[in-house]
Amino acid sequence: MTGTTLDDYTDRYAARVRGMTASEIRALFAVASRPEVVSLAGGAPYIAALPLDAVGEMLGRLGAEHGTTTLQYGIGQGTLELRERICEVMALSGIDVGSGASPEDVVVTVGGQQALDLVARLFLDPGDVVLAEGPTYVGALGTFQAAQADVVHVPMDADGLIPAALEAAIADVTASGRRPKFLYTIPTFQNPAGVTLTDERRDQVLDICERAGLLVVEDDPYGQLSFDGEAPKPLRARRREGVFYLSTFSKTFAPGLRVGWILAPHAVRDKLVIASEAQILCPSAYAQAAVATYLSTMPWRQQLKIYREVYRERRDAMLTGLADLMPAGTHWTKPGGGLFVWMTLPEGLDSKAMVPRAIAARVAYVPGTGFYADGSGTEFVRLNFSFPAPERIREGIRRLAGVMEQETAMRKVFGPMAGRPRTGRGQAGADVPGPDLA
Amino acid sequence: MTGTTLDDYTDRYAARVRGMTASEIRALFAVASRPEVVSLAGGAPYIAALPLDAVGEMLGRLGAEHGTTTLQYGIGQGTLELRERICEVMALSGIDVGSGASPEDVVVTVGGQQALDLVARLFLDPGDVVLAEGPTYVGALGTFQAAQADVVHVPMDADGLIPAALEAAIADVTASGRRPKFLYTIPTFQNPAGVTLTDERRDQVLDICERAGLLVVEDDPYGQLSFDGEAPKPLRARRREGVFYLSTFSKTFAPGLRVGWILAPHAVRDKLVIASEAQILCPSAYAQAAVATYLSTMPWRQQLKIYREVYRERRDAMLTGLADLMPAGTHWTKPGGGLFVWMTLPEGLDSKAMVPRAIAARVAYVPGTGFYADGSGTEFVRLNFSFPAPERIREGIRRLAGVMEQETAMRKVFGPMAGRPRTGRGQAGADVPGPDLA
Repeated sequence: MTGTTLDDYTDRYAARVRGMTASEIRALFAVASRPEVVSLAGGAPYIAALPLDAVGEMLGRLGAEHGTTTLQYGIGQGTLELRERICEVMALSGIDVGSGASPEDVVVTVGGQQALDLVARLFLDPGDVVLAEGPTYVGALGTFQAAQADVVHVPMDADGLIPAALEAAIADVTASGRRPKFLYTIPTFQNPAGVTLTDERRDQVLDICERAGLLVVEDDPYGQLSFDGEAPKPLRARRREGVFYLSTFSKTFAPGLRVGWILAPHAVRDKLVIASEAQILCPSAYAQAAVATYLSTMPWRQQLKIYREVYRERRDAMLTGLADLMPAGTHWTKPGGGLFVWMTLPEGLDSKAMVPRAIAARVAYVPGTGFYADGSGTEFVRLNFSFPAPERIREGIRRLAGVMEQETAMRKVFGPMAGRPRTGRGQAGADVPGPDLA
Repeated sequence: MTGTTLDDYTDRYAARVRGMTASEIRALFAVASRPEVVSLAGGAPYIAALPLDAVGEMLGRLGAEHGTTTLQYGIGQGTLELRERICEVMALSGIDVGSGASPEDVVVTVGGQQALDLVARLFLDPGDVVLAEGPTYVGALGTFQAAQADVVHVPMDADGLIPAALEAAIADVTASGRRPKFLYTIPTFQNPAGVTLTDERRDQVLDICERAGLLVVEDDPYGQLSFDGEAPKPLRARRREGVFYLSTFSKTFAPGLRVGWILAPHAVRDKLVIASEAQILCPSAYAQAAVATYLSTMPWRQQLKIYREVYRERRDAMLTGLADLMPAGTHWTKPGGGLFVWMTLPEGLDSKAMVPRAIAARVAYVPGTGFYADGSGTEFVRLNFSFPAPERIREGIRRLAGVMEQETAMRKVFGPMAGRPRTGRGQAGADVPGPDLA
């Protein structure tokens, strides 16, 4: 193999992985994990809230007493036992037998990410269009861009995705001679925006998609982490046709096991299984047994309540801290659940340019640019409240507010910073700029 | 969403999953798992040979004492600790620091299958050509076909891949105006053929590929399961440029954890990580900790010896059984390691047509057609000896020999069966016909 030839190949890769640089976010997380830094950057659950002794005992028994099955190969779709437990979990949100949910149509995946990737794999050809909220989950952008699809963002307000904007986006894409393949949406406690699509809009969005013949890919990792009463029912609980429902145990149990799922329209379930087999052969029998046993023998509903209480307290600490400490002209969402607050900086500040100075001040966040396919979002900041303790959250906000005030003062002296333009809505195109920290 | 539109989409799927029907093999395995059936069909390790009590204790501690890291998110490339242990494992086979192996260039994957899929994802565009041994691993065929690539088989003999045939295949493909993207090879204890590429041929194959500018994807799940002395060194131990080395802990520890890896050329390692992140975000922190702890605290070299001894005894039982019981005109390979014997049926018998009658006689195998992209291979049978006990192996062969004798007798009465043509070498094309049992 000559160097030249490998270079040829590498050029091909470069074309193939166009847009994949969103993983620069890794660099940020590496810095953010230093103990002196208050990290509001991650999206990690607070695992210490689990009864780890009991979980450990359960995990040990799965190896010692059931190792000949849990440590062996499994089947591509996932075990029936786990798929039945998954249906019980979904029933809590109103996705039940009455709405056509069945273990037969559940496909177990390696976390929610593989669920997304399988849907992308089945649907997307290079150049295809996906509609998604703006901002949206950075991992979804990575998957869609790996599939060489273009993401067209649809704006949200405090009530979630704006139906009229969705209609306009569909019309725009169609007018450009392309057909959007699906709407990717996180309707409940959205990542990163922290907003929730209202009941009324849920029906409107479903009607719009039905009229346009547009499939809906509903990603719901956070729906069961509501702090102020129940969240609105998932889209899939309202309509059984045309909705893929994706979720995960990463936020309600533990991400380290990598267990998620898709509830798929029956006609395509087998295609998803075949695609998954080509990708991973089968999900981990051990991880599946761990989740199924957790759900059948441990008080998981009680644990969900614990997570909710821990996160509500932290959400409150964050909202109070923001109200007490942030400079004028700063705005933020008030999430009713989930893990994230989305903050809009005062005019003239650039969240991406500010990252190194924030790190120097020992606070980390993800700049808004990570959540837009078109490189916009410099005026936004995502703040996580699930992982740090309340007093650390307040300290982190204090540090961040200090950085913002310094930036504003410098701006008054030196004039507006040469930042990127503020977010243009609904644009497709450029690569995702991750927060490079070089 | 109207039914019509979903149908439109489904037609698209159908095009996309062309050739994916290899997973019909699932149906066979479902039948083969019935207790009254002696299954020589699978490829499962004999997990009961593990010290399950000790493994269970280790797994329990990982949850109870280290849950806040093992149950949390990890990083896309995999933990440094596991990548260091993986380098120790590879060093046993001669892939060491001297041959440029470094934890930095290891990417942890969801079993060997995701390793394959990531390589396919980076390299293959629809219509591309992959060279592979004929027969080859059914899961690799599934992955390449999911990528809509064409597989051109290169024949083997008792000494493995035939170098002259490889040269001819490269010339054929090139003459047809296409360029093969890579050679996919399982040089040691090949699945399904059970043969091993000799030392001399290893260098020849590497030279041929280097001259042709052809990358090599070396899949080595079985190399450490040698029964009669050490296996020849992997291709990657001989040449550091242009070889991707793929392996897994599925055969040397446990497949239920789904931990495999790629040792990649440095220039593309980061691309693989980014592709993996788009697919699964990160491999299971828990599974990685389990494997790393197994390798650092438990006697894994001793366990490898136990696996080797168990499988050697079973290989011997199979070879003795075949010699004692098979009708004249039957031939088979004599593997020096691994999990499989590859058997050639007497003239006129069709392994795929014979499956239902074998199941009725309570013995299962995988017909050769599962291992060729072009639907040929009806004269071959893959027999697994790693999972069933020696006496069950002998009983299974007795039953299979009985079925073959009946088939031959019927053939004498009714004339040659209308089977598929015997294997044409080096052909690409049609879908993989799995063993449909309907």
